[in-house]
Amino acid sequence: MTTDGIPPRITVLGATGAVGLEFLRIFEQRNVDPARIRLLASSRSAGKSLRLADTDITVKDSASATYQPGEIVLLSAGSGTAKAIAPAITKADAFAIDNSSAFRMDPGVPLIVPEVNSHELASRPKLIANPNCSTIIMLVALGPLHKAFGIERIDVATYQAISGAGAAALAEFDAATAAAVAGEPTPDPVIFREPTAFNVFSHDSDTDPTTGVNVEEQKMIDETHKILDDDTIAVSPICMRVPVRRTHTEAITVLLRTPTTEAAIRELLAGSPSLAVLDDRDSNNFPTALKAA
Amino acid sequence: MTTDGIPPRITVLGATGAVGLEFLRIFEQRNVDPARIRLLASSRSAGKSLRLADTDITVKDSASATYQPGEIVLLSAGSGTAKAIAPAITKADAFAIDNSSAFRMDPGVPLIVPEVNSHELASRPKLIANPNCSTIIMLVALGPLHKAFGIERIDVATYQAISGAGAAALAEFDAATAAAVAGEPTPDPVIFREPTAFNVFSHDSDTDPTTGVNVEEQKMIDETHKILDDDTIAVSPICMRVPVRRTHTEAITVLLRTPTTEAAIRELLAGSPSLAVLDDRDSNNFPTALKAA
Repeated sequence: MTTDGIPPRITVLGATGAVGLEFLRIFEQRNVDPARIRLLASSRSAGKSLRLADTDITVKDSASATYQPGEIVLLSAGSGTAKAIAPAITKADAFAIDNSSAFRMDPGVPLIVPEVNSHELASRPKLIANPNCSTIIMLVALGPLHKAFGIERIDVATYQAISGAGAAALAEFDAATAAAVAGEPTPDPVIFREPTAFNVFSHDSDTDPTTGVNVEEQKMIDETHKILDDDTIAVSPICMRVPVRRTHTEAITVLLRTPTTEAAIRELLAGSPSLAVLDDRDSNNFPTALKAA
Repeated sequence: MTTDGIPPRITVLGATGAVGLEFLRIFEQRNVDPARIRLLASSRSAGKSLRLADTDITVKDSASATYQPGEIVLLSAGSGTAKAIAPAITKADAFAIDNSSAFRMDPGVPLIVPEVNSHELASRPKLIANPNCSTIIMLVALGPLHKAFGIERIDVATYQAISGAGAAALAEFDAATAAAVAGEPTPDPVIFREPTAFNVFSHDSDTDPTTGVNVEEQKMIDETHKILDDDTIAVSPICMRVPVRRTHTEAITVLLRTPTTEAAIRELLAGSPSLAVLDDRDSNNFPTALKAA
């Protein structure tokens, strides 16, 4: 709520991307009034129309946009755009929540997983960074464990969906898979450096020539330290893509500082936000995070 | 060679399964004389004809088979069949190499990864067990490390292909994927308990209700201890299926007993059998096992 009691406008910047479209789906699920929503994108996508509930909303060019005090701007437009536009948003006394990596490691910008460190929002900062997808889903589960027992070491292997690389990546994957299923030659990859159809491959970010760690893995290390506010946690990530359209999976082993029992961990996680702890051990749905505990 | 200088007959038992057909491909690659090959299967598959190079070989019923001294029998027919048939093979002074889990943990049966512990074959045992696929590929890489530095702990997450569950599983996966690509409802899974198309799921073996560890994971633990002849190694596996037709992948973190350098590990592995150590760190082909070291 803004001070005048009217719910603030919500602007999606990068509305036509994979994440932007997902925002629209969530607005619809939560019955957000379409009149509150403004959609922005680059000039290339401006003029397109997107549907929210029963309302068509025209996407406007972000270049000419101005911002209102109290407005919430969901930035999902890459690092360069975020860096260029965030100052105008915060200067207008609006809130910028940025999905890109532009401000994540900026010491002055809170990096938030709501279930873990929303207490950092008490000062109502104007610019908030959203962590990498792999870090978020890991820390929703590990945040409560760190608070209760202290985490000494994290070994994590990711099974990352194609959607994480954006809408064009999904299209490339769909085309390659359809060709493979039809027994036709798969088109050469453009977005990825590896064939995607029925393939598992190391994450598509660049690998550091000195450490051998790729950018995605480095994000998981750095962001975990910042969000849990503890640089002494040893984090060893191995980030991989799997030929899945959506939904990341992670296999995590955690070494705790304070010894505990599996029962205590189950109880803790079952009472923690945004987590479902499955109890049917005969099922293949048994959560692997707990299997490894 | 048998003592009379004639190369021994090679029998494939379970010739029509996914592994049996793979044996045929390898014989062809290695130019094995088709006259040396005998193919056996259950009565259900007996009478079928399989092609090796330019020769058609009729599959015979394993129920009525007898064995010759020195003959090599590649058993790929499941645990029950292996237990039933192995005594007849060894009694005939033939060699049984069993792919199933029937004899793997039998203290009297060597469990062999040729690159790691072939010295256990010096006594020419008649019955040899072949480890689980996930164990084999892990230990080809870790065997040399354990010998040189000692392994204290292994954290491994698998990305296992559908082919590991057999030919019927592959057919189920292909049908489900084709339906999903066509936008049609996918058939209910029969071989697996989970949908396979574009899905990552916990390994399809049963989960132990007490430990939460599934059978595949327990195999990786027990077989690693036996093959490396060291029960003190802590092994924490998380076994998952990925929607890939063939070729398993593993993400492994190893804690060594003796500290060493990455350069020493690279040199050791580059000189070890059946391993390719990729050196291009800018490439996504950079081996994740080394990334995590």
